[in-house]
Amino acid sequence: MTQEISQADLPTIRLMPKANARAIRHGSPWVFDNELVTDRRTKALAAGTIARLEDAERKFLGTVAVNPNSRIFARMLERDESVVINRAWLVAKLKMALDHRTRLFDKPFYRLVHAEADGLPGVVIDRFGDVAVIQPNAAWAEAMIEDIAAALAVATDVKAIVKNGTGRSRSLEGLPEETVVLKGEITGPIPVLMNGATYMADILGGQKTGLFYDQRPNHAFVQGLVKDQKVLDVFSHVGGFALAALAGGAKSAISVDSSQPALDLAELGAKAMKAGTTFATRKGDAFDTMAALETERRKFGVVVCDPPAFAPSKPALEKGLRAYERVARMSSVLVEEGGYLVLCSCSHAADLDAFRTACIRGIGRAGRTAQLIYTGFAGADHPLMPQLAESGYLKALVFRML
Amino acid sequence: MTQEISQADLPTIRLMPKANARAIRHGSPWVFDNELVTDRRTKALAAGTIARLEDAERKFLGTVAVNPNSRIFARMLERDESVVINRAWLVAKLKMALDHRTRLFDKPFYRLVHAEADGLPGVVIDRFGDVAVIQPNAAWAEAMIEDIAAALAVATDVKAIVKNGTGRSRSLEGLPEETVVLKGEITGPIPVLMNGATYMADILGGQKTGLFYDQRPNHAFVQGLVKDQKVLDVFSHVGGFALAALAGGAKSAISVDSSQPALDLAELGAKAMKAGTTFATRKGDAFDTMAALETERRKFGVVVCDPPAFAPSKPALEKGLRAYERVARMSSVLVEEGGYLVLCSCSHAADLDAFRTACIRGIGRAGRTAQLIYTGFAGADHPLMPQLAESGYLKALVFRML
Repeated sequence: MTQEISQADLPTIRLMPKANARAIRHGSPWVFDNELVTDRRTKALAAGTIARLEDAERKFLGTVAVNPNSRIFARMLERDESVVINRAWLVAKLKMALDHRTRLFDKPFYRLVHAEADGLPGVVIDRFGDVAVIQPNAAWAEAMIEDIAAALAVATDVKAIVKNGTGRSRSLEGLPEETVVLKGEITGPIPVLMNGATYMADILGGQKTGLFYDQRPNHAFVQGLVKDQKVLDVFSHVGGFALAALAGGAKSAISVDSSQPALDLAELGAKAMKAGTTFATRKGDAFDTMAALETERRKFGVVVCDPPAFAPSKPALEKGLRAYERVARMSSVLVEEGGYLVLCSCSHAADLDAFRTACIRGIGRAGRTAQLIYTGFAGADHPLMPQLAESGYLKALVFRML
Repeated sequence: MTQEISQADLPTIRLMPKANARAIRHGSPWVFDNELVTDRRTKALAAGTIARLEDAERKFLGTVAVNPNSRIFARMLERDESVVINRAWLVAKLKMALDHRTRLFDKPFYRLVHAEADGLPGVVIDRFGDVAVIQPNAAWAEAMIEDIAAALAVATDVKAIVKNGTGRSRSLEGLPEETVVLKGEITGPIPVLMNGATYMADILGGQKTGLFYDQRPNHAFVQGLVKDQKVLDVFSHVGGFALAALAGGAKSAISVDSSQPALDLAELGAKAMKAGTTFATRKGDAFDTMAALETERRKFGVVVCDPPAFAPSKPALEKGLRAYERVARMSSVLVEEGGYLVLCSCSHAADLDAFRTACIRGIGRAGRTAQLIYTGFAGADHPLMPQLAESGYLKALVFRML
């Protein structure tokens, strides 16, 4: 047992009169540093401290986790004053999240906890069968990591638990980079079953060779288009769309990526699927490879481009949109008449309209005309707080080329 | 054989210098009356005439269909000057559309042609197995209806073809209401197989008891949530979500609708599915019925509200959004903790953001908190012209209630 906090002992933080108490009361999960009375005592609170949040009239608003090192000073944990934040509370949150995932999926491969929307602010937990990976991207979760791991062992039957302390959000919270196995052991890449495909996830290799569940519904949609088609998957990572396509009956699939470790994992997945010669990889820069394929006059029934975030932030937006346009232009010419082009964005800053416009422009520049047949987002194991619905970063558009 | 037009015989219409020729060249499918030189000769053209469209410099832009009675004066048919608009052209368009649908669906139940995006402006064709229903919502299609029907018989193996001349779009084109069987015969409601459910479509009964294919992917998503759940389907029409839910393993489903003919068809569908007592209907006003269910303290694992368009046009927007908020508020209270709420809009005027905001407000007013787990649109047999992508009228949001 680590922290066990009694309500009476909690320090109190208070909103300034000008702060929007109403928004917080109506579900907003964050309190920014400029909304709070930050006296010396408040500023001295340790990152991760559990505290009582009151409005300017000293009325209780909720139990929060504070981090004086972050612009998000307080994150709402619990609005019921009688509820204590402890291991039992964590188990209840995890069970609520688990109920949803077991309803959605028949195999234990999913994002189990998606931070604020699942009531555990800043906490991401991915489940890979018997293994769970926790990303404690907020100070309170770092402080309570042992409780979270213990609660996870109670709520699920996972045999190994990893803490993955990488990623940009942690640096914003002032947390160090650190990945450790908290429970059990990890021996090599883990086979992940999704949409009938087998992916290999290198849990300890970090983000670059890990696995993302967010594209699952978009993989599934594309599977419905690929029967007997030749498929090109650019920015393929560990084979996301390519292996899904093979599971969906594609004649062949080529994964293009600049990372050899990622392509090695894609190969391993294809081998587990007994894909044989229907699967191939092509290591190289995505733009160079697309240009080369055009020169080779290669055409595909389905082309997928799922690039890294070209517009991760507002300042990068304009340049990012030009990159998306370029991707659309270069990939368009590789699609057969009547074939399909799948264009994805995981950029927070590029909203659906801006991304779609960039894609349409690129397709037009390539001299192609197209129908838009599908607009998809992250899967249902990536719930959003309705108040933050515009935070849906992942967009997948499918065009049919005429 | 009816019309067979030689290119040389076609009348010419011309853009005014101020018109946006570039937009038309880049894929815009419509020319409005105020963009054209409308001399006496042009104004005298019969509705449905095929014509050559030229820019102000007399350069060929495309072969178009004109309608001097419509604000949309010309609709782009073909950009290749050498191509003649005739039955063979129609067959080619239909085959291109058919290739896509046969790839998408293993049974012949789908929207075969979705107007502009499928290259047949103003023409909607739904296929119900051996029966096709054509909606010629533009004057040229009305004029060439026999060619379209003949082309349809060549491109597909349908045994019966119906012309459905109802709906608002036709009145904008100055076309009369008229529904006729053009080929074969229709004997009673047609069983329609979709997502494992059986729906009954009353083809000749018109829109009120017909069937829409647009909700197919949203039905499918909801099927993944309903196992062993009690489902309430408000504004159920012929049983859209309710029968999909039963096919998805729901414990029970109730269809609420104010139309007895629609509920009778839902009952027929449920009977064909051997749903027995798991299916029930409740005739009545949707709002009154939801209020009554609240009074009865009834709760459901899944509640669906798929109302008619509350905001069909810009002037109706504000009132429409209030109605969506009311639907969200009244339906929220009927959902169990951890259950799901499905809210749909088929309003052109309410965009995704506006609709979502109204829903969130309604859920908040009901004192509930929720996760947004899914945002869906019309199915892939309802392609959009990328230039008109905001014309995607159908929105389906799924919330999980905490």
